[in-house]
Amino acid sequence: MSAPKKVVLAYSGGLDTSIILKWLQTEYGCEVITYTADLGQGEELEPARAKALMLGIKEENIHILDVREEFVKDFVFPMFRANALYEGLYLLGTSIARPLISKHLVEIAHKHGADAVAHGATGKGNDQVRFELSALALDPSIRVIAPWREWDLTSRTKLLEFAEANQIPIAKNKRGEAPFSVDANLLHTSSEGTVLEDPGVEAPDYVAQRIVQVEDAPDTPEFIEVTFEKGDAVAINGEAMSPATILTKLNEYGAKHGIGMLDFVENRFVGMKSRGVYETPGGTILLEAHRGIEQITLDSGAGHLKDSIMPRYAELIYNGFWFSPEREALQALIDKTQEYVTGTVRLKLYKGVARTVARWSDYSLYSEKHVTFEEDAGAYDQKDAAGFIRLNALRLKLIATRNARVADKG
Amino acid sequence: MSAPKKVVLAYSGGLDTSIILKWLQTEYGCEVITYTADLGQGEELEPARAKALMLGIKEENIHILDVREEFVKDFVFPMFRANALYEGLYLLGTSIARPLISKHLVEIAHKHGADAVAHGATGKGNDQVRFELSALALDPSIRVIAPWREWDLTSRTKLLEFAEANQIPIAKNKRGEAPFSVDANLLHTSSEGTVLEDPGVEAPDYVAQRIVQVEDAPDTPEFIEVTFEKGDAVAINGEAMSPATILTKLNEYGAKHGIGMLDFVENRFVGMKSRGVYETPGGTILLEAHRGIEQITLDSGAGHLKDSIMPRYAELIYNGFWFSPEREALQALIDKTQEYVTGTVRLKLYKGVARTVARWSDYSLYSEKHVTFEEDAGAYDQKDAAGFIRLNALRLKLIATRNARVADKG
Amino acid sequence: MSAPKKVVLAYSGGLDTSIILKWLQTEYGCEVITYTADLGQGEELEPARAKALMLGIKEENIHILDVREEFVKDFVFPMFRANALYEGLYLLGTSIARPLISKHLVEIAHKHGADAVAHGATGKGNDQVRFELSALALDPSIRVIAPWREWDLTSRTKLLEFAEANQIPIAKNKRGEAPFSVDANLLHTSSEGTVLEDPGVEAPDYVAQRIVQVEDAPDTPEFIEVTFEKGDAVAINGEAMSPATILTKLNEYGAKHGIGMLDFVENRFVGMKSRGVYETPGGTILLEAHRGIEQITLDSGAGHLKDSIMPRYAELIYNGFWFSPEREALQALIDKTQEYVTGTVRLKLYKGVARTVARWSDYSLYSEKHVTFEEDAGAYDQKDAAGFIRLNALRLKLIATRNARVADKG
Amino acid sequence: MSAPKKVVLAYSGGLDTSIILKWLQTEYGCEVITYTADLGQGEELEPARAKALMLGIKEENIHILDVREEFVKDFVFPMFRANALYEGLYLLGTSIARPLISKHLVEIAHKHGADAVAHGATGKGNDQVRFELSALALDPSIRVIAPWREWDLTSRTKLLEFAEANQIPIAKNKRGEAPFSVDANLLHTSSEGTVLEDPGVEAPDYVAQRIVQVEDAPDTPEFIEVTFEKGDAVAINGEAMSPATILTKLNEYGAKHGIGMLDFVENRFVGMKSRGVYETPGGTILLEAHRGIEQITLDSGAGHLKDSIMPRYAELIYNGFWFSPEREALQALIDKTQEYVTGTVRLKLYKGVARTVARWSDYSLYSEKHVTFEEDAGAYDQKDAAGFIRLNALRLKLIATRNARVADKG
Repeated sequence: MSAPKKVVLAYSGGLDTSIILKWLQTEYGCEVITYTADLGQGEELEPARAKALMLGIKEENIHILDVREEFVKDFVFPMFRANALYEGLYLLGTSIARPLISKHLVEIAHKHGADAVAHGATGKGNDQVRFELSALALDPSIRVIAPWREWDLTSRTKLLEFAEANQIPIAKNKRGEAPFSVDANLLHTSSEGTVLEDPGVEAPDYVAQRIVQVEDAPDTPEFIEVTFEKGDAVAINGEAMSPATILTKLNEYGAKHGIGMLDFVENRFVGMKSRGVYETPGGTILLEAHRGIEQITLDSGAGHLKDSIMPRYAELIYNGFWFSPEREALQALIDKTQEYVTGTVRLKLYKGVARTVARWSDYSLYSEKHVTFEEDAGAYDQKDAAGFIRLNALRLKLIATRNARVADKG
Repeated sequence: MSAPKKVVLAYSGGLDTSIILKWLQTEYGCEVITYTADLGQGEELEPARAKALMLGIKEENIHILDVREEFVKDFVFPMFRANALYEGLYLLGTSIARPLISKHLVEIAHKHGADAVAHGATGKGNDQVRFELSALALDPSIRVIAPWREWDLTSRTKLLEFAEANQIPIAKNKRGEAPFSVDANLLHTSSEGTVLEDPGVEAPDYVAQRIVQVEDAPDTPEFIEVTFEKGDAVAINGEAMSPATILTKLNEYGAKHGIGMLDFVENRFVGMKSRGVYETPGGTILLEAHRGIEQITLDSGAGHLKDSIMPRYAELIYNGFWFSPEREALQALIDKTQEYVTGTVRLKLYKGVARTVARWSDYSLYSEKHVTFEEDAGAYDQKDAAGFIRLNALRLKLIATRNARVADKG
Repeated sequence: MSAPKKVVLAYSGGLDTSIILKWLQTEYGCEVITYTADLGQGEELEPARAKALMLGIKEENIHILDVREEFVKDFVFPMFRANALYEGLYLLGTSIARPLISKHLVEIAHKHGADAVAHGATGKGNDQVRFELSALALDPSIRVIAPWREWDLTSRTKLLEFAEANQIPIAKNKRGEAPFSVDANLLHTSSEGTVLEDPGVEAPDYVAQRIVQVEDAPDTPEFIEVTFEKGDAVAINGEAMSPATILTKLNEYGAKHGIGMLDFVENRFVGMKSRGVYETPGGTILLEAHRGIEQITLDSGAGHLKDSIMPRYAELIYNGFWFSPEREALQALIDKTQEYVTGTVRLKLYKGVARTVARWSDYSLYSEKHVTFEEDAGAYDQKDAAGFIRLNALRLKLIATRNARVADKG
Repeated sequence: MSAPKKVVLAYSGGLDTSIILKWLQTEYGCEVITYTADLGQGEELEPARAKALMLGIKEENIHILDVREEFVKDFVFPMFRANALYEGLYLLGTSIARPLISKHLVEIAHKHGADAVAHGATGKGNDQVRFELSALALDPSIRVIAPWREWDLTSRTKLLEFAEANQIPIAKNKRGEAPFSVDANLLHTSSEGTVLEDPGVEAPDYVAQRIVQVEDAPDTPEFIEVTFEKGDAVAINGEAMSPATILTKLNEYGAKHGIGMLDFVENRFVGMKSRGVYETPGGTILLEAHRGIEQITLDSGAGHLKDSIMPRYAELIYNGFWFSPEREALQALIDKTQEYVTGTVRLKLYKGVARTVARWSDYSLYSEKHVTFEEDAGAYDQKDAAGFIRLNALRLKLIATRNARVADKG
């Protein structure tokens, strides 16, 4: 395969992607275009610009974008409509950011007439799959370069040597081995590797990046109200906010109260198990609140259907199939169920827990008239239940009769 | 339909089932046999015997059984192998006790040659369905009597009048309206009705029956280790215990730390929504621990399959279909996956949260060798990922190519 | 419950619904409005008008509508997009017509200010459920009257006596017992009861209402081409046609070639099994053709997803939940997958079989370049498969390693 | 990677696997052990022995086994219990044979202390995946060699040159290009490639390998009776037979009557679509018969559950995951449902169609008493249906009420 001419690199400004930048230049002699996104990871982006310039990237080839609103509106919120949890517990914070990044890489590639995109994910993880499936689904002719799978910089020492040989500045604290690897965006921070590699050993407290240790959280609970429209959060405590502002605000609440910490061993798409510590403060509150509002606005038929396809939906996102016909078809189903998921949930935040304590809605299906233990003025005729049960029991009775008949014979 | 001759009544010794007992005697002139089970509800059962005698039940017609071990071993544990949650949150504490009670009612009916069983559930709830489907699945010719659906004692006043007219003692606190209705067993305590009927109003603290308010829970965390064998808990902190003992012990831990409180609006099988407060202290810890051990011992293929059928499994139990071919077939699937779910989980209990912090097992599938960021000595060839991704991407590329081709034409 | 004032009756003009018409008048003293639909059952409708007039229905209260296009376009075609089969074999011909009828009953009730609708389905079948769930989903305050569940005309003799006493004309062949019961519309004809009641006895040839006996079908095959747009059939042999015309035409082809006969024992929603003979000539061809076009235009991700939810979708229609949030959510999923299901299928019709023999489409995903055994000019690198397989195998290897390790210990 | 020392080759005796045999010897200098299985493909196996000897394989390294009974009993029958169809139509005839072959390859490797197995599947198809996943699931340390992915014999010309250079005899008809590629075993014959590569062009008649053209099938129908025990066929026309004998016999019936021909475009696991012609004469009859007996012996609860997981089960087998925890868990579910699937089905075979016309069983759940249109002596109270429908309708009414309320406001 011939060398690429122009490559759009997902560039964080950190050591690893700076090495990749230089490696692309030296290995392929290609022009490198950088894409640095503000996904809410909480880092300054201008240093990335300066570093790119320093590494010889042309001004017009440096793209720094604030994509926080797009991230929450078009990726995070649609996913939360599904109450998506991977393997019962993981809120998919890393998974959901990858397709967005690939979308921008491909768009920038088209703008510049670039023939390839590149990312800094290793060959052992899920992110390479997510980046590449997304890119290829959006442009089947694009070339994707994954330096970690190609180069021979297979040890920390070699990487640092390459950096030094190429005048890439190395921060002091990067000289030694990082105690673990971190990914962050507005939805979550994940930590994995090194000190976390043995799932039988507790994660040290210092792994926590953004959530306060639960013991240090306030000793008094705080109550908030989250308002939803068609399944998406639109206001906190009655104040309307943009998607990214809402998630930012929920993150503050969650972080303060120690909410959203998960120590988790998961199954990677590439076939191995890995252990991570995930911090999803706002997302954990959002899931609880969304469930709370669905409880009164969503019918059991639609609700149970959603629940039954959720694991498949979460798996698709985890595996990198955001831009796939099956994810889109499932999204159509989910979105259809959210038409009336509108109303407000009151939550108690305290010491690691966000708990729904009340919910109300103009769209409520809850009928006090039907459920009351008191006189219900004919809303519900208890005698109906006899027929309901008898017909539901009919097949069970026929089975029991058959089984008894057969047992007698045997 | 002619009057039943002998009826086995699920009898708690409380006011309501005492009224039912008397009503059966007077309405049908039938012989009544009482069945009172210790399911771990935490009440003395001998008073029920005394009361039954007082109401004219013959000594030999009074059955008081401690079924706690059977309950946990044959009902609770199989259900927890599935990580069953109804509508994402409810641990099915009431649902799972009903089939056990019906099983005993039917067995006692057979022993006494009784032609009917009776229960004290109303015509609005799920329990009537669970009792009756279970009874009829076990004996298709048994008659089930549900006095609440038949009699004309439709108000509190009429009930008390009936009680007084029939010399049924009424406890002082039962004169007024109870503020809510309670069901309890070893797995959970549920509260619903009256003060809980408006889901937009917070439940008062006094609703909590067995879990300490989280604000009053200890200020220091406690760590415990739960050991599993083939998916069932067998030991706490290294000490082997019987199923019921384990659940009792976990209940103590949970209650102390404020763990397992749920305020929930659910969809009843009979078609309406209702709001309940559920306390499942030990069950909440058990679920977390079971997930923790599955994380390292269960393969993703089996795990995702389990996850995908779980909502259906939980719905079956909620709806009363424990004794059905489909629940049994799903159980066969679930049990098959638990063959290697053996090992130990370490949990941190603190202020309402039980969180897995470590897990280990001789049966672990976790491979540090494969997952490490360090040199893996050839365990995993990162280049394999390129082919893996390319073939996973192939269909997405074909779709994108097709769509572009069609768009060009259109 | 007080008597209804005005009732809209689903009226066929036959003996049974004429008896119901009269019974409603005499039992309730209410005004009766008749609704007679041309669903393609192949009967003249004007005699129904004459008979209604004769039974005292006012001219303006008689509604006769040709709903064939609506039936196929809004009910049959959406269902066929799903390849819906109940219990693997049944094309849901009766089930899919019922919600349409209820929709019209409710609309007419609203126009006339009627407070009830009535249907002629018995209390043992599925149709009562379908009629009533649909009506109540569309108007929760409407009253539905099912005379078969209410009256005491519980034998053929009593019915005929009532007819005679009320001057309802009885066709000669209705005096004796019909050998079986028939329902028909443009999609299918079903027969059940009497001579069909023993599923161990073959159905007599005369049960077949519209399909020629396969032995009498032509001895030479016929080939047709069906064209689809977004999942719906739009043309036969290149000739564009309306939905109802297409189904009519396919029925002619199918009937002539003996296609679409099914002898079936099914599980009714009300809990019992029943045996029916279903003739679905055009529908059987349509299903085969739709599958044929999906084979080249639908991606495996979307296709397998559709397949996995199809049984649930079919069950919902069978059980009468057409107008339910969960059917609508599933429909949104299915419709989303049909965006590119456009193209033409060539079928061979011969002696009971419709078989796809060729299919082509501008929207095809089939890539000869990729699949060829010949040189593929780099379209596909066979070496990629090695990595694909190795990563797919990784978890299986880890399991095997674990199991061996454990077995060694044991 | 170092060269393998001993390789067990899946050897058919044909040209391609003979070339592979020689290539293994020359490429790796390794000892080759051959495994040739009688899977019912209808070819003499002794010529394979002679050829292996001629190619220098030691007598004790040649393994020729008749595995037909194992194939049907342990692979085909368990799969048919599920009514497995891939993508709605394909009976998985090739897919189900591959794990059996791998099992024997691994067993022979263990016996001989071989360090690798080899197969003749190309890098574009599913079979490589099936062979390799199965082998690695059974022995995670075995090495699998797929010469088609490794060598440079990438054209027909090169292959023939290699054969000539190595004294491998070439049958006359192999000199030219075969018009299509064929795989056969007791369950089916598949044809694909070359003349079949354009799915828009009809397959020529000569593609059919074992089924008579339907026009040439007998002009009179034939009736047979198939008896099942616990879901497996055990007798034809009352005569008990072994699994392989039954399938052989059904193949004869099917082939004679033109039953089981499928022209199909499917989605391969490796991401592309391919077109094949499948002949599954006996399997097609067996599926129809199995469905027939399930119709009267299987309850709807278990039946619908089976139907809902079937697509996943079929996909697993198609993709090569026979030896996986998820296939085994699904099998446990399926097998549990088959406990009472015992009885006899009568089928009409005629001109391409096998149609159930009657079925009976001591284990039948069909209750004529319940379903009859006549007096049912109280078996079923039609009034029960009113309550059943009302409670099923309740949530739909609550939705309609809510929607109307909201619409009024809007």
